[in-house]
Amino acid sequence: MSLIEDLNWRHAVKAYDSTKEVAEEDLNKILEAARLAPTSSGLQPFRVIVVEDQQLKEKMVKGALNPEVMRDCSHVLVFAAWESYSNEKIDKVYDHHTDVRELPRGRFSSYTDQIKQIYAAQTPEEHFAHTARQTYIALGLAMAQAAELKIDSTPAEGFSNQVVDEILDLKELGLKSVTLLYLGYRDTENDWLSQMKKVRIPMEEFIIRK
Amino acid sequence: MSLIEDLNWRHAVKAYDSTKEVAEEDLNKILEAARLAPTSSGLQPFRVIVVEDQQLKEKMVKGALNPEVMRDCSHVLVFAAWESYSNEKIDKVYDHHTDVRELPRGRFSSYTDQIKQIYAAQTPEEHFAHTARQTYIALGLAMAQAAELKIDSTPAEGFSNQVVDEILDLKELGLKSVTLLYLGYRDTENDWLSQMKKVRIPMEEFIIRK
Repeated sequence: MSLIEDLNWRHAVKAYDSTKEVAEEDLNKILEAARLAPTSSGLQPFRVIVVEDQQLKEKMVKGALNPEVMRDCSHVLVFAAWESYSNEKIDKVYDHHTDVRELPRGRFSSYTDQIKQIYAAQTPEEHFAHTARQTYIALGLAMAQAAELKIDSTPAEGFSNQVVDEILDLKELGLKSVTLLYLGYRDTENDWLSQMKKVRIPMEEFIIRK
Repeated sequence: MSLIEDLNWRHAVKAYDSTKEVAEEDLNKILEAARLAPTSSGLQPFRVIVVEDQQLKEKMVKGALNPEVMRDCSHVLVFAAWESYSNEKIDKVYDHHTDVRELPRGRFSSYTDQIKQIYAAQTPEEHFAHTARQTYIALGLAMAQAAELKIDSTPAEGFSNQVVDEILDLKELGLKSVTLLYLGYRDTENDWLSQMKKVRIPMEEFIIRK
């Protein structure tokens, strides 16, 4: 199957079969696609928290738009972005880059000096606006990977960031939740959207040729 | 090839072969992947502007971090998000949804009333923060589609939004540029990154299990 076929196959599932679980091997592929997502300057300024525990999910549903979807899915992935950039965080990533590539540390310092300067001139709010955006690349690729495996998923912004951040102690990790991705297998009978045709804006309206 | 193999194959190409062009058929597949990207409430609050004309590219390089990459690539995709949400825009999308699904218009009005209320309470800045995020899903899927076709790409935030918005008359369309995606074929000799190992944060650090 091609990516386009996978994207046509998937939809945001509205009801999950709570008896079916995503296999560990498949879950790892979905996480790997998120990990491979390209990000600004390669900083990967976010983490993915995997929640499978039912009790933890029950706590996280408080304030969620579709609590039953969160309850019944197999796994909840929480995409949580860095609250802010710092020189230390940038150095840590680039030290890892040079170590893996067997290059001297500091090999990319003319570039990292440049990005450090840019971020130093910005507020933490501007940092988070930027780190949060990056998570959506990984969110999209995780959905595509799930679809390749014929695993259903539902991206969700409709939840309480405060509740999720508190329950998962994200502040201590310097992270703030951005989106969730529910994973599992659809309950076809109760998933009203699975009966409906996929709709997108027509190509001639979506694309502007110059 | 699987998505993971495609993601491992790709990297942000730093030099393009200016003599090679992306075929129309392949370009259309990349645009289709972007069009199929899931978005918040299915609103697809962005458009993709395709720039192939060399003179237009020459104007857009002003303020770009890597002008030669923009110059030498085959096509520039500009991901441009809605400046703001409005009831009219929301109705237009949902009227299309119901028309395609042969349902009465207004079938989803309890839902659209809800999102209209949410957006009415927000500032245009908050709207754009949200629409801009959605473009990153499509950006990621367009890159994945390019990689599936063994077409190179480079995502870019390093350009002058003001210059690009002006040159493409985006304000008139109610759009603001967010990211670019350069498409083409790498110039292996001059693309320093193609010689280097892909590096990502180790899985045990990227993923937090709860």
